Amino acid sequence: MENLKKQVGIKAAEFVKDGMTVGLGTGSTAAFFVEELGRRIHDEGLSIIGVTTSSVTSDQATKLGIPLKSIDEVDFVDLTVDGADEVDSKLNGIKGGGAALLMEKIVATYSRDYIWIVDESKLSENLGSFKVPVEVIPYGAEQIFRKFTTAGYAPTWREDDKGNKLITDMHHYLIDLHISEIKHPEQLAQELDLTVGVVEHGLFNNMVKKVIVAGHDGVKIIEK
Amino acid sequence: MENLKKQVGIKAAEFVKDGMTVGLGTGSTAAFFVEELGRRIHDEGLSIIGVTTSSVTSDQATKLGIPLKSIDEVDFVDLTVDGADEVDSKLNGIKGGGAALLMEKIVATYSRDYIWIVDESKLSENLGSFKVPVEVIPYGAEQIFRKFTTAGYAPTWREDDKGNKLITDMHHYLIDLHISEIKHPEQLAQELDLTVGVVEHGLFNNMVKKVIVAGHDGVKIIEK
Repeated sequence: MENLKKQVGIKAAEFVKDGMTVGLGTGSTAAFFVEELGRRIHDEGLSIIGVTTSSVTSDQATKLGIPLKSIDEVDFVDLTVDGADEVDSKLNGIKGGGAALLMEKIVATYSRDYIWIVDESKLSENLGSFKVPVEVIPYGAEQIFRKFTTAGYAPTWREDDKGNKLITDMHHYLIDLHISEIKHPEQLAQELDLTVGVVEHGLFNNMVKKVIVAGHDGVKIIEK
Repeated sequence: MENLKKQVGIKAAEFVKDGMTVGLGTGSTAAFFVEELGRRIHDEGLSIIGVTTSSVTSDQATKLGIPLKSIDEVDFVDLTVDGADEVDSKLNGIKGGGAALLMEKIVATYSRDYIWIVDESKLSENLGSFKVPVEVIPYGAEQIFRKFTTAGYAPTWREDDKGNKLITDMHHYLIDLHISEIKHPEQLAQELDLTVGVVEHGLFNNMVKKVIVAGHDGVKIIEK
């Protein structure tokens, strides 16, 4: 599995050209992409600006010598590459397993090109095998949790290593929804967007046009 | 003006009954309501639980001896009383002049009854005389600001006393939109709700059924 993740990370780095502003995803697969960019900067003299999607990725990029700017310091991002937790046949996806969905969605929103890199285990016909993370304001979070329970979404709190409610980079909590099959991701997304106290959610509908997938038969690119 | 604000504050307190859980609004008008509750607790032995909508109101309530619980510690709120910056003929409103719109909207969402108290200068046929505050995630806030500029919403940053960007109780920034006439508040609300990076906004559409208004002719109650 690590080998598959590494393959797509390196493949995606081929799309990065000199002078680009590049959105750097978060998570175990995106980390291989970031690592490869660090190698190209060091070995090939590649010149890019990175825009981070989490404090974890900032730390990695800084160690690798990738110059960083905040999303607010650039006009736009040329290309963002990130992992995904699940991708359906229409290239809608679920993200947020790494607790960085909010910053990831913000960076993606201002990116001209956006690519996901996954191993083939992440592909499914409909979304729902993976939990849907929902980032919420701490004040009122228990009320939202109860609302999700009533709606049948089987919510659980995302916890940190010590078993406390995890606090995101942007000072919020995460609630994971366990919905076995999401037939209408746009409808669920809208419901969550309109819920008071919900900051953002892990449904990334209709945001990517290209997904790089690694399987035991090799690497392939799915486009729509 | 202070006298008008005091009149509606005292009037609204008449709707508070013994044993209620009461949402305590924020701002100069709501402060008179909170003060009157403090008086009734002291003079009449009124027994209530307060649920705050800001750190400022928490401080006031604590000094007045009003026992407080968080919105997460109660099942629901019986009645919330709050001010509003502008109210249209359909009882849609704009709130957030006091920078507390997010907590105010969260408490209102879980309230069975919700009353606004205003002086008559706050009433208008259509919304838009008052700025629409939008609470945003700091990461990407400059991007949203540019987007609002392009949309013609004449945004300005809410600043603190020192001229820095104000940071809300929930760790976000506020951008004020200056739209002279808002003909379709539901449409604007939905646009803002669906904007990545927007946490919440000051359009409170279709949330109250009762507004207590003080004018130079006395106090009247508008209901729908």
